[in-house]
Amino acid sequence: MSAKDPSRGLLVSPIKNGTVIDHITAGEALNVLRILGITGSTRECLSIATNVESKRMRKKDIVKIENRELRTEEVDRIALLAPQAKINIIRNYKVVEKKGVEIPEVIRGVVRCPNPGCITNTDEPVESTFEVLDKGLHCLYCDWLIKDDIANHII
Amino acid sequence: MSAKDPSRGLLVSPIKNGTVIDHITAGEALNVLRILGITGSTRECLSIATNVESKRMRKKDIVKIENRELRTEEVDRIALLAPQAKINIIRNYKVVEKKGVEIPEVIRGVVRCPNPGCITNTDEPVESTFEVLDKGLHCLYCDWLIKDDIANHII
Repeated sequence: MSAKDPSRGLLVSPIKNGTVIDHITAGEALNVLRILGITGSTRECLSIATNVESKRMRKKDIVKIENRELRTEEVDRIALLAPQAKINIIRNYKVVEKKGVEIPEVIRGVVRCPNPGCITNTDEPVESTFEVLDKGLHCLYCDWLIKDDIANHII
Repeated sequence: MSAKDPSRGLLVSPIKNGTVIDHITAGEALNVLRILGITGSTRECLSIATNVESKRMRKKDIVKIENRELRTEEVDRIALLAPQAKINIIRNYKVVEKKGVEIPEVIRGVVRCPNPGCITNTDEPVESTFEVLDKGLHCLYCDWLIKDDIANHII
């Protein structure tokens, strides 16, 4: 396969160490990166594929991040956008850990409260804090409820 | 290659129709997507690789966008972030057009003027317009000069 022929497949080589996030809800890969704080210019070796075919999900996204092992706290944020995601931690080319994501009970510092009057939107050093309910994200400071489109509220 | 073994390479299949943006400045792929208006949830089939090895550039990013042929106007915006980028238009698995990017003389509606008092930041229906100079981007309405970090000002 020649790099000079872009019509050919792009073979993203296996990663030696890092994290593979598989079975991301189709189309949500860029939001998953955002919720992990990966935006703009990046030094990380990423490979991303969106809307690829999947036996289990029909379509899915995949994200590989080299040389970064996601912490449980980060992993669980992903559940807000992609509850079926599977996290594979890779060391020396082997999967050493494989886990699903669990919707956290409380998320701090991840989502901005849409209420401009909320104390978390002032100059006070107060981190946004939401409890995760079936009906949406509930701000513990001002009672605002984010019902949908959580991705648009990521800080 | 099995999808069940995430330690293996991720083979992104060749695209039938669309655009391959090659030789993007290393680390700038996510900004290139942003300047193309591809953010958040996406229906497009994208494949992205950042900081991969390149003979010519040491490291580079690559973006493939299926079923979308970039227009010259869009292509030239990319030059602001990745002046060495090469655009390959693919039809029926073949490269039908290959072109570099040219830094445009004027860019409209792409970058937000950092001056809060600029007319383009008011409710007036005036599109942001910058001329591209060697020293930076010059707002044609308020004379503000954006010297660096253009990516942070993308609308």
